[in-house]
Amino acid sequence: MYLEDFVVGSEFTSSEMTVTEDDIIAFAKQFDPQPFHLDPEAAKSSFFGGLAASGWHTAALTMRLLVTGGPEITGGSIGAGVELKWPTATRPGDRLHFRITCESVTPSRSRADRGIVVLRVETLNQDGEVRQLSVVNTLAFTRPA
Amino acid sequence: MYLEDFVVGSEFTSSEMTVTEDDIIAFAKQFDPQPFHLDPEAAKSSFFGGLAASGWHTAALTMRLLVTGGPEITGGSIGAGVELKWPTATRPGDRLHFRITCESVTPSRSRADRGIVVLRVETLNQDGEVRQLSVVNTLAFTRPA
Repeated sequence: MYLEDFVVGSEFTSSEMTVTEDDIIAFAKQFDPQPFHLDPEAAKSSFFGGLAASGWHTAALTMRLLVTGGPEITGGSIGAGVELKWPTATRPGDRLHFRITCESVTPSRSRADRGIVVLRVETLNQDGEVRQLSVVNTLAFTRPA
Repeated sequence: MYLEDFVVGSEFTSSEMTVTEDDIIAFAKQFDPQPFHLDPEAAKSSFFGGLAASGWHTAALTMRLLVTGGPEITGGSIGAGVELKWPTATRPGDRLHFRITCESVTPSRSRADRGIVVLRVETLNQDGEVRQLSVVNTLAFTRPA
C-alpha cells in the first residue's frame, strides 16, 4: 500500500496467534526477567495474580501479526512513534488478533515522496479482552509517478 | 523503591549491553520479519541502508536494562502506558545503555496504596546516538505504614 491507498476510517483485522506459557517465560527470560513473567507460582502473589506476559511481549506479538497479516505497506512497516497502553496483561492460552482503524493520513510538508499514516491498533484475545491499545505513526511512501 | 522514594529531576543511568547482528536477526525472525531487520544484503537497498534492529527489539532491550539495572521498584516494574519514538535504529555492534529522568510523581486519587511515576527513558548507543526516546507511566506502591 502507498500513502494514497490508506482511507481514514478503514479497518483491518488479523488472524489469531496463540500464546503459550512457554512463550511468555522464554520472552521474559530474554527481555523482562521479573517473577510475574517468569514463574507461575511466584506470579500468584503478585499484582497480576498469575503468570502474565510482559507488555513488550504483547507489543512484539502485535508487530508480528502486523507484518505477517496486516496492511502490506510498500517499503515496509516503519514506525516513527507509538503510544501504548496495556489495560490487561496477555495470559497463557490467549489467542491474540488485532483490529486496526486508520485514523489519519498526512502527506509530509517537506518531502513529497512520503507521509504519515496514524493507525489505531487494538490487540484483543479470543474473548474480546483488550490486551493492548496502541496508536502508531507509520511511514508510508507516495505512489511513484 | 516505593512511590515516596522517587524525586522529580533525579536521574539513573545503566551499564551497557552489546547488540549483535545475530541478536537483531533472531528477534526479527520471531517478531518483525521484514527484510531490513533480517538480511544485511537486502537491507542495503532499504530505507535503513543496512541492517537495522526492529524498534520493538530496542524497546525490549531497554526493558531488560531497566529490569536488570534500573531503579528497583517494590512490586516490580509495571508499565501503565508508554510513548515511544525511534529517532534512529539500533545497529549491529551498538552498545546500548539508558539515561532515565524522573519527570513526575503522582499519588492515586482513588487508591491510597499506589501512584504513577513518569520516567523519561533515553536509550543511547556508545556514541550518544539516541536509539529510543520513551516516556513511561510506571506503577509504584506507597511505603507500608
